[in-house]
Amino acid sequence: MKYLNPGSTIGIIGGGQLARMMILEGRKMGYRFIVIDPDENCACANITEELICAPWSSLNAAIELSKKCDVVTIDTEHVPWQSLQAMEEHTTVFPPSQTLKSIQDRLTQRLFLDNLGLPQTNFANVESKDDCKAALEKTKTPAVLKTRTWGYDGKGQVVVTTPVELESAWEKLGEVPCILESFINFQDEVSVLLARTQLGEHAQLKTYPLAKNIHANHILHKTLVPSGYPMDIEKKCFAIAKQIVDAFEYVGVMAIEMFVTGDGDVLVNEIAPRTHNSGHFTYGGCQTSQFEQHIRAVTGQPLLETTLYKPAVMVNLLGDLWESQKPDFSQLTKHPLVTLHWYGKSPVRKGRKMGHFLVQGDDIEALQSLAQELFDSL
Amino acid sequence: MKYLNPGSTIGIIGGGQLARMMILEGRKMGYRFIVIDPDENCACANITEELICAPWSSLNAAIELSKKCDVVTIDTEHVPWQSLQAMEEHTTVFPPSQTLKSIQDRLTQRLFLDNLGLPQTNFANVESKDDCKAALEKTKTPAVLKTRTWGYDGKGQVVVTTPVELESAWEKLGEVPCILESFINFQDEVSVLLARTQLGEHAQLKTYPLAKNIHANHILHKTLVPSGYPMDIEKKCFAIAKQIVDAFEYVGVMAIEMFVTGDGDVLVNEIAPRTHNSGHFTYGGCQTSQFEQHIRAVTGQPLLETTLYKPAVMVNLLGDLWESQKPDFSQLTKHPLVTLHWYGKSPVRKGRKMGHFLVQGDDIEALQSLAQELFDSL
Repeated sequence: MKYLNPGSTIGIIGGGQLARMMILEGRKMGYRFIVIDPDENCACANITEELICAPWSSLNAAIELSKKCDVVTIDTEHVPWQSLQAMEEHTTVFPPSQTLKSIQDRLTQRLFLDNLGLPQTNFANVESKDDCKAALEKTKTPAVLKTRTWGYDGKGQVVVTTPVELESAWEKLGEVPCILESFINFQDEVSVLLARTQLGEHAQLKTYPLAKNIHANHILHKTLVPSGYPMDIEKKCFAIAKQIVDAFEYVGVMAIEMFVTGDGDVLVNEIAPRTHNSGHFTYGGCQTSQFEQHIRAVTGQPLLETTLYKPAVMVNLLGDLWESQKPDFSQLTKHPLVTLHWYGKSPVRKGRKMGHFLVQGDDIEALQSLAQELFDSL
Repeated sequence: MKYLNPGSTIGIIGGGQLARMMILEGRKMGYRFIVIDPDENCACANITEELICAPWSSLNAAIELSKKCDVVTIDTEHVPWQSLQAMEEHTTVFPPSQTLKSIQDRLTQRLFLDNLGLPQTNFANVESKDDCKAALEKTKTPAVLKTRTWGYDGKGQVVVTTPVELESAWEKLGEVPCILESFINFQDEVSVLLARTQLGEHAQLKTYPLAKNIHANHILHKTLVPSGYPMDIEKKCFAIAKQIVDAFEYVGVMAIEMFVTGDGDVLVNEIAPRTHNSGHFTYGGCQTSQFEQHIRAVTGQPLLETTLYKPAVMVNLLGDLWESQKPDFSQLTKHPLVTLHWYGKSPVRKGRKMGHFLVQGDDIEALQSLAQELFDSL
């Protein structure tokens, strides 16, 4: 790892809220930023030194970016790994193209996890109608058919219970390569957020406290931390996460979603090779936010402490809130335990992540009720 | 106080590091910023939505700013109070013109403090050579002659011990209106940083822990917190500060420099009606930074907790460091107790504040040695 002095330039593909928060943290350290995003009014507009207006998938834009930057990172995994590979000829890229390639395709990701012997759901490849029967025999029903690439927030996923449903689901998803997974009757989804870097010969790793996620309509609604799970479950989660980042020789922040079943089993659901929505509680809630930590990792600085100051609940604010009337946020900002975070995106759209708020206090149960009450009042 | 929703626009006169850090905090809350600064490469370039390139003193620029903003604040007190007055016809301004007028002139500031019965040094007005004799009789020697306006970081100050020295000092300072102050043989300079706002009928006030300042060449070199002073001295300092902000019905963050003498007396040195260099320890070191707190105050949000996480030492990094060779900051960033803050200013100039670093740990004595060691290694 090369150490980058203040004044060095960091490139980011994707100009969403994750990039915005990375930049706000990175600017404190004196780094310059160049962002690729198709939208000139993206969340990074007026925050970055330069905005290259181009699709995330633009190879030319990626090459231009790589020539201007001392290091490049991403705010979305929906960047073609081939772009990263092309950039690697000119600069350092985190995650590297090979890591993104392994993760980007749900099947390759599952095979990678299988190789490590990590617990996960049963799965099968579905590339044609002919694959359906054998796939269902492997997963049993109910199962979830997912596109192998480009899915997020529940998009590109269908639950199926019969062979006929599976065939029509595959048609519905556009007859693209898919993966069928056994439906897991999980108790909770938890996120392990961790950062890893390489300092000389020595790998440094910092984990954040285990967080519990609550979804609504397949989009993250709330994150609670601490998760309430006992030490042995936490240990299981962290051990799995460590195996994954070490296998990739990963540099940066990674989020790993896992399911905890009623029997206390832990199954890996999904790897995100970047900062993550479920880690927003760290921004204001921990000694070092996921964004500062990621920037430190990719610039060759040692990682800092991840201590959680107080129990916290993070609540996402989606564009849906504007459906009936313009929401009044003063109820949130007037509350002494609340901080409102805003992404400066425009226009408002249903399902679009516009901001989030963080409630911090002493008792997680009380905080959760308070968070829900405040959310309902909007 | 009117509450400003995310998306509202905040104007700042002055585009230095204080404005930069206010913006980085304010952007988290979704506010938009417009800055007036003469330098298009100022510390706020590429961070603010709009930069009006004009001198801080430009009345036209101030009026333009006030028409575009929901509230206006400052990063320097060297803005003519007349500009604030003109802006008040179009928008809300913190501090108001009358507050700035009282503080901007060292004589008016001393008279204001006298009116409140607050302890301070003896002082006398010097507007002509004829005033010199009477002034010295009032202050005795040694004394410090200071220009009444536009002085900072020791600029516009001369120590005098005889009537002849006083006359030539007055000539040296340009024969402008000056104030002569008794030289105080103080033990320490301390800073009281506090925030005040008005929520309905109710004034809210939050003080930060008392900080001790160490200067080098009249420029702040280090701030240590906690100050090491016992509770009774702290109480005295906070009581004085409270009287001052209440008298102004102040909204925002204010820093008040005070001298503590060997006898445990506290004397007010200077009022800064803005965020302050000696409060940088709050940025990363306290639950709510002075910058976040100031933005909350001027946008009608309640103030948040000021808890110091751990003892901290803040060290300024001046352009002087570049005099022999380009400094290598990797020694700072490699240390697990250190965070480096950088202002993105260019070019480097002797005496220019380029950045600072914060060392946080458990023992203030050890931290101070560590901070000095790290500084000396640059």
